[in-house]
Amino acid sequence: MTPQIITIAREYGSGGRLIGRRAAAILGIDFYDAEIIRLAAKESGLDAEFVEEEEESTTSSLLYNLATGAGVIGHGIYSAQNLPLQDRVYIAQQQVIQKIANDGPCVIVGRAANYILRERQDVLNIFIHARKKYRVEEIAARHRISVEEAEKAVQKKDRSRAAHHRHYTDQEWADPHNYHLAIDSGAFGPDDCADIIVSVYRG
Amino acid sequence: MTPQIITIAREYGSGGRLIGRRAAAILGIDFYDAEIIRLAAKESGLDAEFVEEEEESTTSSLLYNLATGAGVIGHGIYSAQNLPLQDRVYIAQQQVIQKIANDGPCVIVGRAANYILRERQDVLNIFIHARKKYRVEEIAARHRISVEEAEKAVQKKDRSRAAHHRHYTDQEWADPHNYHLAIDSGAFGPDDCADIIVSVYRG
Repeated sequence: MTPQIITIAREYGSGGRLIGRRAAAILGIDFYDAEIIRLAAKESGLDAEFVEEEEESTTSSLLYNLATGAGVIGHGIYSAQNLPLQDRVYIAQQQVIQKIANDGPCVIVGRAANYILRERQDVLNIFIHARKKYRVEEIAARHRISVEEAEKAVQKKDRSRAAHHRHYTDQEWADPHNYHLAIDSGAFGPDDCADIIVSVYRG
Repeated sequence: MTPQIITIAREYGSGGRLIGRRAAAILGIDFYDAEIIRLAAKESGLDAEFVEEEEESTTSSLLYNLATGAGVIGHGIYSAQNLPLQDRVYIAQQQVIQKIANDGPCVIVGRAANYILRERQDVLNIFIHARKKYRVEEIAARHRISVEEAEKAVQKKDRSRAAHHRHYTDQEWADPHNYHLAIDSGAFGPDDCADIIVSVYRG
């Protein structure tokens, strides 16, 4: 394959965002992460701060969908006006991701971009994971919190990302079959991970 | 990490064995696959042909273990004389794999080698997978059988390998967390997969 786009799904604390940024810098291509949230918010007219709060939560969204008859998101059958906020946010982000991918080579971190771009043949899908101990230590150091607090944060984020992915796709988040490459960042470190991605991208 | 040993777990038809052999050739290190079966059989005094038949089947082994009071295999609590044949084969292979790993750098394909060598710090664990369609076509071409027959064979092998792994380890076979690198061979092709492994091994 000759990829143009790199998508990175990453476990919380695995350094996936940093790795993606580094790979994009080496390759000299665009990098999207929080930027997508802002772009999506802009497109949909939603308040950026609110979008950030909502975008990885799926609390009772399925029930809400059923109650409002909103149908199945991500499969093209929905009635936009009946949708709860987070589903409108997802749709806005989906459109932004498709636009970004059409604009040229880039790295996109998170947002189930691998699923959103699944029809394209030029996308390299990466999953970055690491042992829990590594990720907890990483988060504790990054946010200067205790190991106990970091452990709770990691658990919560993993759960919400997996739930988000399951809700909007027909895939399991941590299933290696959904990615061309799954890398243990705890074993290699962020720089080597970025180098592996760059080397695979270049072919 | 500075790996000495490469283990490769692979889905049937993903070309994992070929990829491992190629990586070993490029690196100039030993390659073990069917060879392990023969070595294991030799060590345990079992007939080689019989070992080949038994080694990936776990039919009613758990029940047999419970009935004979053989206890938990792979966790060090067992009574060798009461063990069913396939568990004795597993133990023999486990010993062979540990011996091989002690002897120096090598590639070991299959046999849950990642789990058997989990206490070592110098092992690079790889999982090779591919979309089912790719693997079915591969097996149909390799064995000159129909697509329908190949599909059945792939399903059966996947099931038996997953069951074997689950039986002898506390891991799920296709869980990316059990590997440092999981690669989609259908996307890259066997040669590029071998190159990725070689490049990661060399660091």
